[in-house]
Order: sequence, then structure tokens, then C-alpha cells
Amino acid sequence: MIHNRIHNFNAGPAALPLPVLQEIQQTFLNFQGSGMSITEISHRSIWFDDVINDAIERTKRLLKLDDQYEVLFLQGGASMQFCMIPLNFLSDGKSADYINTGTWSTKAIKEAQIQNKPIKVVASSEDENYCYIPKNVSFNGDAAFVHLTSNNTIKGTQFSELPDTNNIPMVIDMSSDIMSRPLDMSNIGMIYAGAQKNIGPAGVCMVIIRKDLLALCPDHIPTMLNYSTYANKKSMYNTPPCFSIYTIQLVLKWLEDTIGGLEQMDALNREKGNLLYDFIDNSKFYSATAKKDSRSLMNVTFKLKDDSLEKSFVDKAFEKGLGGLKGHRSVGGCRASIYNATRMDAINALISFMKDFEQKL
Amino acid sequence: MIHNRIHNFNAGPAALPLPVLQEIQQTFLNFQGSGMSITEISHRSIWFDDVINDAIERTKRLLKLDDQYEVLFLQGGASMQFCMIPLNFLSDGKSADYINTGTWSTKAIKEAQIQNKPIKVVASSEDENYCYIPKNVSFNGDAAFVHLTSNNTIKGTQFSELPDTNNIPMVIDMSSDIMSRPLDMSNIGMIYAGAQKNIGPAGVCMVIIRKDLLALCPDHIPTMLNYSTYANKKSMYNTPPCFSIYTIQLVLKWLEDTIGGLEQMDALNREKGNLLYDFIDNSKFYSATAKKDSRSLMNVTFKLKDDSLEKSFVDKAFEKGLGGLKGHRSVGGCRASIYNATRMDAINALISFMKDFEQKL
Repeated sequence: MIHNRIHNFNAGPAALPLPVLQEIQQTFLNFQGSGMSITEISHRSIWFDDVINDAIERTKRLLKLDDQYEVLFLQGGASMQFCMIPLNFLSDGKSADYINTGTWSTKAIKEAQIQNKPIKVVASSEDENYCYIPKNVSFNGDAAFVHLTSNNTIKGTQFSELPDTNNIPMVIDMSSDIMSRPLDMSNIGMIYAGAQKNIGPAGVCMVIIRKDLLALCPDHIPTMLNYSTYANKKSMYNTPPCFSIYTIQLVLKWLEDTIGGLEQMDALNREKGNLLYDFIDNSKFYSATAKKDSRSLMNVTFKLKDDSLEKSFVDKAFEKGLGGLKGHRSVGGCRASIYNATRMDAINALISFMKDFEQKL
Repeated sequence: MIHNRIHNFNAGPAALPLPVLQEIQQTFLNFQGSGMSITEISHRSIWFDDVINDAIERTKRLLKLDDQYEVLFLQGGASMQFCMIPLNFLSDGKSADYINTGTWSTKAIKEAQIQNKPIKVVASSEDENYCYIPKNVSFNGDAAFVHLTSNNTIKGTQFSELPDTNNIPMVIDMSSDIMSRPLDMSNIGMIYAGAQKNIGPAGVCMVIIRKDLLALCPDHIPTMLNYSTYANKKSMYNTPPCFSIYTIQLVLKWLEDTIGGLEQMDALNREKGNLLYDFIDNSKFYSATAKKDSRSLMNVTFKLKDDSLEKSFVDKAFEKGLGGLKGHRSVGGCRASIYNATRMDAINALISFMKDFEQKL
């Protein structure tokens, strides 16, 4: 691999497209002729204005957003959103419906409960250790929103399509599959995504919010916890995380100009995922842990027949230049995170190693 | 200048030491032999563990912190701290004393008031447009803490020494002068600092907190707004802003190993500040805006005799490779921010330009 880089299967922070990293590196001491690094320019400068505006415009084009939506950049990761969502949208005693599909949904629910918000968990796959996505969920007509996690990084499950919520706006944690496929926005009130899986480095959370949800934000909550603050000040009430936003801009440029958009990205992701799942399904040595109809195209979770071999598998893989294959510490097993930036050659190298490992036992 | 870089007098994001930027650039595609960029490694990896541990240890050595203090990394800038401070430390109906020395103090006060906390503003320099630091302040014996802004970026004032608070712990916004000089920690309960002025890029806020203040944090507030979360999880309850923390680590390494520590940094900062203030004081064309006994060594605010010349001054300076000299948009005038990373040659170049500009009129 170029520059002795490995195939990076980390769940997040995760692989970024090499051309993006190279552009950052090349311009790092002098950004766009400013005579300063991207880390040294003012967020109120013409240079940064171009960066954040381009990131917003590319987001709007890629997701085909209409003027109802604002694209915002916040800090604190998706975890900060878990508390901001009920704080902003449930100030008037309203309820909301939550679908529980694993660790991150559970945390989102907990943060609403800490605030004593009357939310309802309308579906959960906890009964089978979150290995599936609940189907045919019924929602409460009085819910202000339906919250769900579109892709579950830890359990390796993903909504193949979004539920029908009877026009209740969805608020979706898309940290691990944003920009991985085209999206029907017709019933989406808000998307949020910690950038460090599919669109950038750690340290920034993209929030795409519809104006009717913005109208719910109350006046009397702390300024930095109010979505209106970010919408009114173009995410620059205070200094935003400039470097992380810049990296997002470059990733979106790569996605739009090099890959060709979300349809093309989706096709590539399906090709990668199918190849790996097919190999696992045809193996007697490896087995996938998520139910077939709920599998994630982003995080492929699998086990070895003999789980005592897993440490050796992960270690030997790293020696061969395949990093990040250990499952999340809370569930064990193995996991290959194959986000947008993971190329087909990484999948081929992984399958080749998996064959080798089995044969050499 | 090397790489056509300018002399950067930005108030924040601001100049970083060139060796720091060069090290980031050189290692950007493959960090410490990991085969990944610093933006791609897991925050739970051995590589990042080394980064954050070193940043913490260097902070403790530089500021001579004892075991009472925890060094934490949060997101949302100092502005997020404005709401977290009253939320965490005033949950039991207690009051706190605030000193108002300008824009940032005013915002900190506002965020306590939004939460209906019974705080008291015990001193203010608003009567003279915040051009001085209040002296001989009396504090309320029942205050849980005293809040102050040690350096006022916009008005160009700085506490030359911290007030005597009769053992009430101080909570200090040091965003623009942290690590610029040695600090007597004996009465400090908490320091916080958005990194983007003196210790790193935007996107991370350093919080140094004493254990008795940590003990005040209530259980029932949102997880991401509770200082205990960060202390209990070594700032990794969720993914931290890895790149920004890494840059802080390198800046602290430069400060400790190249500069030699805070005594040496202080001496350099005094030399730079005195040179520039002396030039301004001896000029009939330029005048400093902050009162002499309250002047900041970090942000030198000044005016031209004829303020209609200011735009031309700022523009011509930029043409000559001196950037960021425009005063904050809320106050006008000019400002040279001369943080740790600003070298003496930048001060000399600025003075030389200021002489030229006056002579060529």
C-alpha cells in the first residue's frame, strides 16, 4: 500500500479517502494562498466562508434537500444530540416514539428519560440481542417525532428502508450510514451524524433539520443547546470546529465529483457488502451475526466457529495490513466496517486473508 | 517567509508554531507507523492513548498541577462551558459571583441567568466600555465560586494578577491566555479554555477541574453536560475530537521542550508585548485603547489617530504579509493578537510596517 498505509476497517474514527488526506497534507502550511494553515485561519474569513458554504451546498445537492432544510455543524458528537433532541422538541409536554435497535438508541432513550420527557419505546429488538431491525412498528398519533438509529455500528444491523410513520417526522441518528445511499427525505424532520464514520474526522456532528422542527425550539434553554442558535448564525455563533468541517467539505467533494453521487456510492457499497456477506454465508468457518434481512452494509459483524481463535484472527490480520477487525468491546466477535472510503481492494484483501487464516489452521 | 506564510495576528483561530504544523503535515498519511492518519485511528487505540495521556501529563507539568486536578477535553468551545458551569455547580440553589470584563463574561453571566441561577455580578467595567480590569472587588461569602475571564480578547485587557477571593474557588475562562504564563493554582477551582487561541486548533476546550468542584456535579443532568462523565471516562465517554487533542499535545510539547516552560514563555510574551506597547505609547499616530494597568499581553488593541485610515491600514498590512489586524467587528479599531506562537520577528515586522504606514501618508 502507498505510504505503508493499511486497509482500515475501523468502526470510527474510520478510513478517509486517500485523495482527501493528500489534499489536506499538501495545503496544510498555506491554505488557498492565505499564508496560513486551515487550523490558523479565522472562521470569519473569506477562506472559511468558502469552505463551510461549499460543504453545505454539496450536502444539499447530494441529499437533494429542498429549502425546508438547514445544514448545521455542531460539536459533542451524536451523544450531545441525544440530550438536545428532547430538550428542543419536547418542551411543551409532548411525547415522542423511540425505536430501540441497540447501544446508541438505548443511550438516546436514556437522555430523554433523564429529562423526564414522556417518551415511548414503541419497538425494540433487545429480546434477541439487537440482531434484527423491528418491522411493522405502530406509532402513537400524538408523537412529536419518531426517533431511530438507521445503522447500528455495534450490532451490524441497518434499516434497509425507513418505516412508515404516518407522517410523524422522523429524527434519525445516521452517524454510521449518512451519505452511503440516496435518501427519501419526504418524512424526515432531522438527521444527525457524528462525522467520524462516513464523512469526516471526529469533532463535528452534521445536523440536517427541517424548519417546522426548528420552530419547536424554545427560547429559555441554554444558547449552545438550542438548534435555533446554529440555524440563525450559520453554525458560527461561536468558533466552529473548522478543521473537521473542512475535511467534511473535501469528503463531500470526493463523493460528488469522483464517485459521482449517492446512487453510485450505494452501488459500490452494495457490491462491497454483498461480496463479503456472500463469502461468509458460503463459509463453514465464519458466520454473520445479524439477521439476513437486517444486515448492515456499513458494519459487517461476524464470528469464527471457534471464538477462542478470534484474538489470533485479529492480530494476524493486523500483521497482514488489515486493521480494526475486532468487534466492539461490549459484544466481542469480529467486525469489518466498510464505509464509503473502504475500497473494493480492501474487501478482496480481507476475503483473501480470511481464506488463508482458515486454511492454515 | 517560509512556504509564503504570513505573520498571523488573528485573534482565534490563531497562529500555531510552525514546527507543530510541520510535524502534523509530515505524519498525516501514516501516524506513528499505524498505517493510518491521525484522523483515521480509533480513539480507543494505543496510538491515541499515547496522545491524550501525553497531553494530560504535559499540562500537569507545565501548570504544576497536583493530584486534586483532572485535565479534561470537551467540545463546544468556552461558550458551552458558560452553560455547563451553572448547571453543574449551582444545582442546590447556591449563588456565585461573576466579574464582568466584557463580551465573554457577559455571555457567561447570561447563560447562568437563562437557567434562573441566583448569581451576582460583583464588579463590572462596563461603565468605561470594558477598557479596564476592576480592582479591589468584594465577594459574597456564600458564593459557590467566583467566575472571571482572565484575558479579554476583544477589549485587550487582562488580569495582571488574579483577585483575592477569600478562598472562594475561582472558575476562570482562560481561552486567550492559558499557558501564556505560570499560574498560582492555590485558589483555582476550574480553568477552561477554547484551544483555538493559545494551545491548538478550534474544536476542543480544555477543562482543568479540582475534585471538590467535581463533587458538586448532580446526577440528574444530561450525561454530556456533566463534568463527572468526562472525569470518569478520561474524556472518552464518546469519541473525542482526536485531531484537535493531538494538535494540543504537539503545542504543549513545543512549549515544554523547545520554549522551556511557562516561565520562559512568560518572559518572551512580556518582551513582545512591551516592545509593541512601547512603540505605540511613543507614537502620536497610534494609541492603545486599554488602560495601562489592565493591558493584555495577548491582544494589543489600538486605534489610529484618524479612524478613517483603519481600513487602509489593515488592507496594506495584509499586502505586506501581516494578517488579522482588524479589531473585533463589535468594537472596531485595530488589534494585534500576539499569542505564544507569535514570534519576535512578527512584532518587529509589525512595528516596521506601522512606522512605514505613518511616514507614507
